[in-house]
Order: sequence, then structure tokens, then C-alpha cells
Amino acid sequence: MSFDVLPFIETKRDGGEHAPGEMKAFVEALQTGKVKDYQVSAWLMAAFLRGLSSEERRCLTECLADSGRRMELPPSMASVDKHSTGGVGDKTTLVLVPLVASCGVPVAKLSGRGLGFTGGTVDKLEAIPGMRTHLEMSVFRSQVERIGCAVSGHSAELAPAEGKLYALRDVTGTVPSKDLITTSIVSKKIAGGARSFVYDVKWGNGALMERFEEAEQLARLLVDLSRSLGHPSRALLTSMEQPLGQWVGNAAEVREAVTILQGGGPASTREVCLALGGEMLCLAGAVSTPEEGEKLCAASIGKGKALEKFRQLLEAQGGDPRVPDAPEALLPLAEDSLSLAAVGEGWLASVPTRRLGEAVRRLGGGRLTQTDTVDPGVALRLHRNIGDPVSPGEPLATLYGRDKARLEETRRALEGTFVISPRPVEPVRWVRRRLG
Amino acid sequence: MSFDVLPFIETKRDGGEHAPGEMKAFVEALQTGKVKDYQVSAWLMAAFLRGLSSEERRCLTECLADSGRRMELPPSMASVDKHSTGGVGDKTTLVLVPLVASCGVPVAKLSGRGLGFTGGTVDKLEAIPGMRTHLEMSVFRSQVERIGCAVSGHSAELAPAEGKLYALRDVTGTVPSKDLITTSIVSKKIAGGARSFVYDVKWGNGALMERFEEAEQLARLLVDLSRSLGHPSRALLTSMEQPLGQWVGNAAEVREAVTILQGGGPASTREVCLALGGEMLCLAGAVSTPEEGEKLCAASIGKGKALEKFRQLLEAQGGDPRVPDAPEALLPLAEDSLSLAAVGEGWLASVPTRRLGEAVRRLGGGRLTQTDTVDPGVALRLHRNIGDPVSPGEPLATLYGRDKARLEETRRALEGTFVISPRPVEPVRWVRRRLG
Repeated sequence: MSFDVLPFIETKRDGGEHAPGEMKAFVEALQTGKVKDYQVSAWLMAAFLRGLSSEERRCLTECLADSGRRMELPPSMASVDKHSTGGVGDKTTLVLVPLVASCGVPVAKLSGRGLGFTGGTVDKLEAIPGMRTHLEMSVFRSQVERIGCAVSGHSAELAPAEGKLYALRDVTGTVPSKDLITTSIVSKKIAGGARSFVYDVKWGNGALMERFEEAEQLARLLVDLSRSLGHPSRALLTSMEQPLGQWVGNAAEVREAVTILQGGGPASTREVCLALGGEMLCLAGAVSTPEEGEKLCAASIGKGKALEKFRQLLEAQGGDPRVPDAPEALLPLAEDSLSLAAVGEGWLASVPTRRLGEAVRRLGGGRLTQTDTVDPGVALRLHRNIGDPVSPGEPLATLYGRDKARLEETRRALEGTFVISPRPVEPVRWVRRRLG
Repeated sequence: MSFDVLPFIETKRDGGEHAPGEMKAFVEALQTGKVKDYQVSAWLMAAFLRGLSSEERRCLTECLADSGRRMELPPSMASVDKHSTGGVGDKTTLVLVPLVASCGVPVAKLSGRGLGFTGGTVDKLEAIPGMRTHLEMSVFRSQVERIGCAVSGHSAELAPAEGKLYALRDVTGTVPSKDLITTSIVSKKIAGGARSFVYDVKWGNGALMERFEEAEQLARLLVDLSRSLGHPSRALLTSMEQPLGQWVGNAAEVREAVTILQGGGPASTREVCLALGGEMLCLAGAVSTPEEGEKLCAASIGKGKALEKFRQLLEAQGGDPRVPDAPEALLPLAEDSLSLAAVGEGWLASVPTRRLGEAVRRLGGGRLTQTDTVDPGVALRLHRNIGDPVSPGEPLATLYGRDKARLEETRRALEGTFVISPRPVEPVRWVRRRLG
């Protein structure tokens, strides 16, 4: 059947709705290269400005998910996957994969690399000596069956048409469309093979969506779309008004994740991990309420089961199994450091979250281009949280890097970006809403 | 200066306005290939849906016109060019170039080939034995200086960035945007070097714009944009409710043009040619009102000066100079023919103009793809005009071609497409409005 792309583009341009058969033909033509990139990008801009109906989103998502191989997990397995829309210092995946698995629910987690100012789980895993971060499909599947969890970078075999679409969106100004973001995320999740999904949708000055209402709309779209395709789903709206936890940077975030699995670590990271873990257990049917799930997670940490599962995960994927016992020794921290000091007296009112993520990236802790190598030891430590009282000269954050001059330059660029209020300020409410 | 295309696309996507410097940088990047086609097409769709401001249209037009060489005519020359938005049977250029020149106003006319259901002047010129249709810039210029007129196909040297943009619009569903149509037309006219322009904007079922109001908006945009760039301009809104004149087809239209220059021919073609010629003379300052201009044109035809100028034009461009004397003998007409007969009694109420144009094209009189060769002898003759009384069995139109089977097939496809009304119908008002 031949597909005529011009009427297809014109339909969306004029605000019309695509029939399922048309959408299917478009994705097929996209995959086989029968439509040109310049035609796809014209359609993407039309879709950006005209929007997609719920039926169009459903159909596009299904076609994209079916554009390559799907990860096949045993049908009896009540596996769950978690997806975060990305944030600064977001190390929850490192905690949740072993934590939820230690409670008896299989976790089949596919992750990406960091691009832009937020880190990616694959980069964090690479900070662990020896860790394999890209698993063959069969290896991934058998590992989930054997130890209850696996975490791997996305394979190009999964949803390749989505990859093509995303690459074009990235260079044509069509990324921040909720309709396109939703279909992109859900199609990859579905191709990843898990039965149910928990979405961690972040909002704030360090998130894709700065406004809470925008993030809430996206969360609703993600949950509705996943459910309409037969995948039970829930979403949490969590804050990105400041980086999550105390540390930002690849190796440093693994260390913080280990402290959480050990029962310690910053309260914020623990709170968000338990909330997400509780939702995942509930969604998989292991408990009947998210609150019960949180308790089960806390108990698993308390009994050392979560840390033990993390050790199994490391062993299975070639990572150094001594990391859970000696994270400080095995995970690098760059030797040079410089601190940013508070200039006023009062309460910390605002943190430049996105700029902190960008600072770590610029110091070598992230990528500016696809081919950059990442220095896992580059880090930022946040000493004060929003709402904490601060005095002049007190350190607010410390930057760790390998180059004094760049550290000094970065510090200067951040001067005056932390806001101190003369009146008390409420601390961050990490979990602001639950959907599903 | 490096140009970052992403913020540029995002500005238009979000409904913003481009600063002149940005627009200039975009056109430069387009020309040098520094922006990718898929980025240009995303911008085109955003511009289609968000529109361009008058300042943006002005700036884009200027940049496109300056993207290659400009035709340079002597500054003292009050040259005038005419542009039609395209119609079926529109042979006015063939008449106007010698007619207006014969009245003492230089005509520097650049034309295109036919694409779609409307013919192009270059194809019509090629029906004349020996006629050169693509003149070097210097030859074109010196011919205008010497005999007062020249007509040539567009050179790729003129407004090449416009050519790139148009090629992309054609394959991305972004052709029918008035803002983009306007900048495209005016940039080519300006690069063509004439001082002032008359626009023949057609409306009706054989035109780009079916509705009169749409055509009127386009005409207003064309005149305003041209004037804002320092080019005196006027526009006529002329009917395309039925083909112009009696004949459609390349050689047949040259024959009809010769009959007009001889003082005969269908009243409709004569009326539209005189109206356009009057506007051209007035705009060039040769007369003080369009009505005076019309009279001057009619007189020039009456005295045989227009036909004589046509002969000079043929001689200058290598065309057979006997054509004005023996058009029937020298311009081919395909030998096979079939007529469409009226099936009812009454008054002709509607003619399928676009379908008639397509029929001629399909019979070999136009191109289906860029590389098709055109048969100049293929033609259609219209025997009745809208408003004429008709009786059952009377021929309404005759098709001329080289292949009986295809003629029969075409005739069958056209059966029942002419509407006959039981009540009297007003004839076509050929010139409905004048702007400028």
C-alpha cells in the first residue's frame, strides 16, 4: 500500500485528526525512510501547534512501540518500570531497582544517558567500576527472571521509529509538546516489556516543566495513555525546586544511593524513593495501598535486604560487589573543590537548580555533545536546603572538579543565584500529588 | 557570525516576530546549506500556522531577492512586469508583452513553466518554432533596451534561496500560505529587475484561491508588500470561473493571442488583456488613468503596432516571424478530437475549470512530473460561456489529442461536470476589482 505523505501533513496542518490506518502508514513510511526528514519535521511542527487527540496519541504510541522488537518478559511476571521526566540529582532509579526487587516485585528498568542539564542513569551506572550498562535482550530478560531486576541502557532495537522521531524533534524545536513527549515516553516504556509503570513527573526550576500545573497535565496524559493501552499506571508529582538530596554528579549520586539503601542518606532522597517504591509495589499488586508499600520498602532497607539485592545486581552486571561496603573508596570524587558562600542572613528561599545541573555538566560531569566523555568524579554538594536558616559566609554548596580555573569560573557564574529571604521560608514539599 | 537555528524556529513556533538581522541570518544559512532541510521545513510549518508580520514579510522578501544576482535594467527605464497567480487558458502574457511595449513602456517579463493544472508561459513560447525561451541576463537586458521587451524563463541565478524554499514548501504542505506566497512572488519579481508590477490575481474554481475574498486578501498583500519595498504596484482581481478565452493548450493559446493582437479573438481575453495593459501603462506613467491606458492599448492593436512588436519579439528570440501572419499553419493542433455535448436545455451555469486544465495536462498538454515532455498540439476549445443558452446535444467543448482511447477516457471523465440551469444565468464578470 503506498502512503501519500502530503495529505497526511495537510490534515494535521488544518487541525484534522488522523485515522488509525493513516498513522500506521506514516510510522511505517518513517521507519522505511519512505518519507523524508523534512516532511516528518513539517508534520512534527504541525502536531506541535495543532496537538494530537487522545486517539491519535494512543495509535501513534502503539505504532512506535511496535516499530522494533519488544522486550518479552514472562506473561506471569507482574513486572513494573519507573520513568522520571528528569531532574538534577535524581538518583532514585539506583535505589528503586534493588529496593522494589528486594520486596518481591520484578523490576525491568531501561534507562537513558544524560543530555542537557539532567544526568542519565546509564552515566551513573558507568561510574561503578566494571558495571555493564548495555545488556542484550536475552541477558536482560534472564537476569530479571533470576534475581528479580536488571537495569540497562536502551537498545536501538526497541522502538527505533521513536528514536528517529526524537532525533528530529531535538533539532527542529519540537521537543516541548506534551502530546509528543507523552507518546515518546510511553512507546519506549511499552517496548521495554514491563506490565505497569510509575511516572515520576518533576516540576520546578530544575525540571522540564517549570510550572506545577504543566507537570500535572503531563502526568495525567502519561497515566491515561498508558492505561488506554492496557498498562496499569500511576504518577507522582515531585519537586525539582532544588536538586534531590545532597549530591549531584555521577559517582557521588551512586554513593548517596548506597547510603539510602544502607538506611541513611538525606531525608529528601529517602522520602521520594519510598514514595515511588510504595507506588510500584502497590501497582504490581504486592500490597494494597501505596502506604503499605512504603512500609514494606522501609522494612526491606532496615533488614539489609535492599542493599543485598543491590550487591546481586552489581554481581550480575559485572560491577564491583564491594561498592555497597566501601562506596567512598571505590567511587571517585574529584580532588579540587571550591565553595559558594552565603552573602546574607536569613532563610534559603530559592536554589538555581537548572544552573547547578549545568555547572556540573560544564565541569565535565555531563555531556555538551553526544561524543563527550564524562568525568564521574565531578560533583556538587548542596549544604543547605530551601527553608534552612543561613548566615553570611556559610557554605551553601561545594563544587568538585579537576581544574581550579574552571572551578573558579563556575563559582563566579553562580554567585548571587541563591536567594536568601529575610523572612522564614517553607521547606520543599517533595511529593506534591499522586495520580492514578 | 554563527546562526543558531533552534531559537529561530522556536520564536516562530511560539508566535513571536523575527528581528530583521535574524531573518537575514536565516536566509544566509539557508543559502549556504548551514541549516538543514528538516529545520527549514519545521520553520515553514510554524510560519504557515503562526503567520508573518508585514515587517517579517518585507525583510524575508528582500533577503530572498538579494540571495542571487538581480537583473539590472537601466535606472532611467520605467519598466513594468506583470504577474498572474495562474489560471486555465491564461495567455495574457503573450499579448501584453508586445502590446505594452508597442505603447512605449518597456516590459521585462520573467515567466515560469506550467506545474499542476495551469499552464506556464515558457511552455507556450516553446510551441513557437525556433523560439528561445531562456535568455542570458545580458541578452535579456539588451533586448529590452533595443526593442522594448523580452520574455524569458526564470534563471536559477535569480533569487536562488526562494527556489530552495519553494521546493521545500511544495513537498511539505506549506504552499497555500498567503504570507509565504506573497514573499515568494514579490522576491522573484524584485530580482527580475522591473521597477513596477501589476498583479493579476485570479479567483474561482480554476484558480489557486477559489474564493474571491481570499484572492482579494492575497492581492492586497502583494500590492502592500511591493510598495513597502519601493515598487509601485497595482492588482486586478480577475475571474477563473471558466477558462479565459476560447482555447486551452500551448500552441492553441499562442494562436488565440495572435488573434487578439490582430484585433480579433474572444471578448473575454481581449477585456482582461486591455484591463491589465491599461494598468501597466498607467503604473509606468505613460498615461494618467488605467482607462486612458486601455484606450492606448486598443489603438495600438487597431493600428497594427502591437502585432508588429510581436513580430520583433519573435525575431529577437529566434521564433518564426511568419507566425503573426499564418498562425494556423505554423502552430500545431492535434488531429484527433472529440466533443462533449450538453445533456440538458437551459443556460450554462458552471464550468469545471480546474478539471478542464487537468484534462489537457493528462492528454499530454502539460506535465505530470518535472521531466515530462509537453505536446504543444494538445488543446481544448470551449464553445459556450457561462450564461450562454444551450440545447441538448450541442457541443460545449472539444478536446484535441493524439490518442483516440485517451480522448474518449478523458471525455467520459468530464461527462456531467458542466452545470446547466433551467433559469437564466449572469455571464462572468471578468474584471471584478482593481486595487492600487
